[in-house]
Amino acid sequence: MVDIGLEAAVEEARSGLEEGGIPIGSALVVDGAILGRGRNRRVQKGSAVLHAEMDAIENAGRLAPSVYRRATIYTTLSPCDMCSGAILLYGIPKVVIAENETFTGAESLLVRRGVELEVVGDERCIRMMERFIAERPDLWFEDIGEA
Amino acid sequence: MVDIGLEAAVEEARSGLEEGGIPIGSALVVDGAILGRGRNRRVQKGSAVLHAEMDAIENAGRLAPSVYRRATIYTTLSPCDMCSGAILLYGIPKVVIAENETFTGAESLLVRRGVELEVVGDERCIRMMERFIAERPDLWFEDIGEA
Repeated sequence: MVDIGLEAAVEEARSGLEEGGIPIGSALVVDGAILGRGRNRRVQKGSAVLHAEMDAIENAGRLAPSVYRRATIYTTLSPCDMCSGAILLYGIPKVVIAENETFTGAESLLVRRGVELEVVGDERCIRMMERFIAERPDLWFEDIGEA
Repeated sequence: MVDIGLEAAVEEARSGLEEGGIPIGSALVVDGAILGRGRNRRVQKGSAVLHAEMDAIENAGRLAPSVYRRATIYTTLSPCDMCSGAILLYGIPKVVIAENETFTGAESLLVRRGVELEVVGDERCIRMMERFIAERPDLWFEDIGEA
């Protein structure tokens, strides 16, 4: 069965790659519908805060806290400290992570705070990030704050 | 001695209040200069991610990881999970918090991860937030993700 949230996140990542950006995508799903989708915007918007998950949350607009409590956020890559913090702020109870092999974010913090994680092991996303990191280590390390 | 970072953050919070927004401000200071300043933009931009600290980091633009490592971020209010996560992502080593009486964010996580915190106990900020929370509890609880 196709998972609409996962497929939207992968499409977003691919769009980011086509734009010359960092290929990470995300989607915020509530009650089976995508309320927001997004992708890393460091290159496209010169943004330091619009990682994919942040962009998806931003594009969903202002939501009542109760809506986030029913949400699942999909991301093509394990969420970093910032994106994990946004997930905790809004009490999003579940994160579907396409892959956590090329980077592992704040998964243990999320689990400790009661967030459910599902790791897909999506080969498309692993290959896309492996290739990107090999080709553009400068962009990648800027994005994860590592000198 | 006037602290330029703290004063900029307080000015930002006041500007936010005048705009009908949530009165929280922030400034990112590196080597004695303000590289970015910002304020909560939930009302002004319909933003779910531009808390004051995020707005200051965003307005500073793309910076090399090494720059963040020399930064201090000032905020008029104890940083929430999301803003604390952004501080951790970029390895900002010090946070000056004008007050943490009306809300205490992820301070223990920051300390555990080696971030230095300085709490000022600024009466101006305490009074501004007390009044705002009393007058606009709807906006306040939306902003901190509490139903």
